[in-house]
Amino acid sequence: MAGLLKQALQRIQAEVDSGFDALLPVPSDARARLTEAMRYAVIGGGKRIRPLLLTATAELHGVDREMAVRTSLALEAIHVYSLIHDDLPCMDDDDLRHGKPTVHKVFDDATAVLAGDALHAFAFEILGDPALTGDPFTRAELTLCLATASGLQGMAGGQMMDIVAETTAFDLPTVTKLQQLKTGALLGAAVEMGAILGRLPPEGRTHLRAYARDIGLAFQIADDLLDHEGDEAAAGKALRKDAAAGKQTFLSLLGPDRARSQARMLVDQAIAHLGQYGAEADLLRELARFIVERDR
Amino acid sequence: MAGLLKQALQRIQAEVDSGFDALLPVPSDARARLTEAMRYAVIGGGKRIRPLLLTATAELHGVDREMAVRTSLALEAIHVYSLIHDDLPCMDDDDLRHGKPTVHKVFDDATAVLAGDALHAFAFEILGDPALTGDPFTRAELTLCLATASGLQGMAGGQMMDIVAETTAFDLPTVTKLQQLKTGALLGAAVEMGAILGRLPPEGRTHLRAYARDIGLAFQIADDLLDHEGDEAAAGKALRKDAAAGKQTFLSLLGPDRARSQARMLVDQAIAHLGQYGAEADLLRELARFIVERDR
Repeated sequence: MAGLLKQALQRIQAEVDSGFDALLPVPSDARARLTEAMRYAVIGGGKRIRPLLLTATAELHGVDREMAVRTSLALEAIHVYSLIHDDLPCMDDDDLRHGKPTVHKVFDDATAVLAGDALHAFAFEILGDPALTGDPFTRAELTLCLATASGLQGMAGGQMMDIVAETTAFDLPTVTKLQQLKTGALLGAAVEMGAILGRLPPEGRTHLRAYARDIGLAFQIADDLLDHEGDEAAAGKALRKDAAAGKQTFLSLLGPDRARSQARMLVDQAIAHLGQYGAEADLLRELARFIVERDR
Repeated sequence: MAGLLKQALQRIQAEVDSGFDALLPVPSDARARLTEAMRYAVIGGGKRIRPLLLTATAELHGVDREMAVRTSLALEAIHVYSLIHDDLPCMDDDDLRHGKPTVHKVFDDATAVLAGDALHAFAFEILGDPALTGDPFTRAELTLCLATASGLQGMAGGQMMDIVAETTAFDLPTVTKLQQLKTGALLGAAVEMGAILGRLPPEGRTHLRAYARDIGLAFQIADDLLDHEGDEAAAGKALRKDAAAGKQTFLSLLGPDRARSQARMLVDQAIAHLGQYGAEADLLRELARFIVERDR
């Protein structure tokens, strides 16, 4: 991993952990268990790719670091709530996440459902709060962006398609749409929210959106390859479940060689979309390369 | 039920149903199943007490009806998502809600989790959207209000306490806090959101907040009494589960006579908080009385 990226990842990981730690104190009543489950899920795990994308995009446009990090906590809270619900026995039934037992294993299913729900609300508490920014227009725009990316038109819609994929043989365009919703929407929101903080008008976000779309697909193809070839210990979660379930993926539809070259092509294309930026966008470029080169 | 209230309930029920119908068209892809589950849950069920509270408060302050109804869809979406998750086998495991089979019975557990999550996001899509109001300050304030009322400091926190109540004998102050969070927070948000739409400054909301707090507790005591004495067919859901689980409630702690007189006292008190309003607040007064007199 390139030095710039490595440093940036370490920095955002520390900032996200301490941000959640500060915003989620454990109350001294029966809600303690819920807060502990939320803290267990959000602190000390995950690569924090979405917060990095958001803060790197914000930095391109001179946004105050503290505001960008706080906004990225809302985004990461949505990502983590979706993982908690996704890991439930009635969903993917996973016991391991980021190398730790999943929330419902450590606590119980009911607490896991509630911890996900409470993190979901927590995200919008952050975005609605004047403590984030005194500009209500930015808060409202961030709210709409994140809610759209995580709901029926985004992540939750993609997860529904993913469930249907277990019993229906999807073709390549349908798998692409599924992945654009399931993973792409939230990665796109990371870049979009950074641009919103930077007060970039919608028409000025075209290149950034194209960058996000390309790395979103590349990310998923890389995930499919890692799922196929990776090591469970390094991944910190169960692998090869899609193939076992007979689910169509980029890998099953394209084969490993075409999948790999497609991912590389998407990364080159993503980097080309950053052409208008100079060295200040190097972090976004390194991140794009990392997405297909990572080992977990 | 008084005529004014009966009319108002019928009106808001029709408006909420047609509002959800318009905002949740069924897409022609694999997300259709998710949308159908969301529509099954939000259309054609429930008393719509929260939307009525919100719109009645908004009307007191001359708010445009369409804007108030649309805002109440966000609030009701949060209420309904919490019912879907609450009914899951790993939570309360209920088969019946509003006289219909619950979402996870008609669809499946995974779809029920996702339908709840998608409705949760949908609520904030409504509030973040400029289509609601051109005033971003109002959108951001509504977002913060609803997110706080539904998260750890509100509904989700109360539900966690409710789970703990199954294994811990709570005293009256703790049951009161539990209920203020679990049910009271969202009823309070209904009134608060109506006041926000009416651009009432926070210091002008004191009486309305006191009204909401009192009817919130009265509502829960009435619920306990209905749970104890009511008819399952009229209620449209399973009853007497709290007693079976050995959970402390207002009823178990106060006994039926004191519980009943406490509820009536709270309603009188709630109505007294509306003293500054004339006949224009009669709907809120009738609603307060209805809350302890209803049969479901």
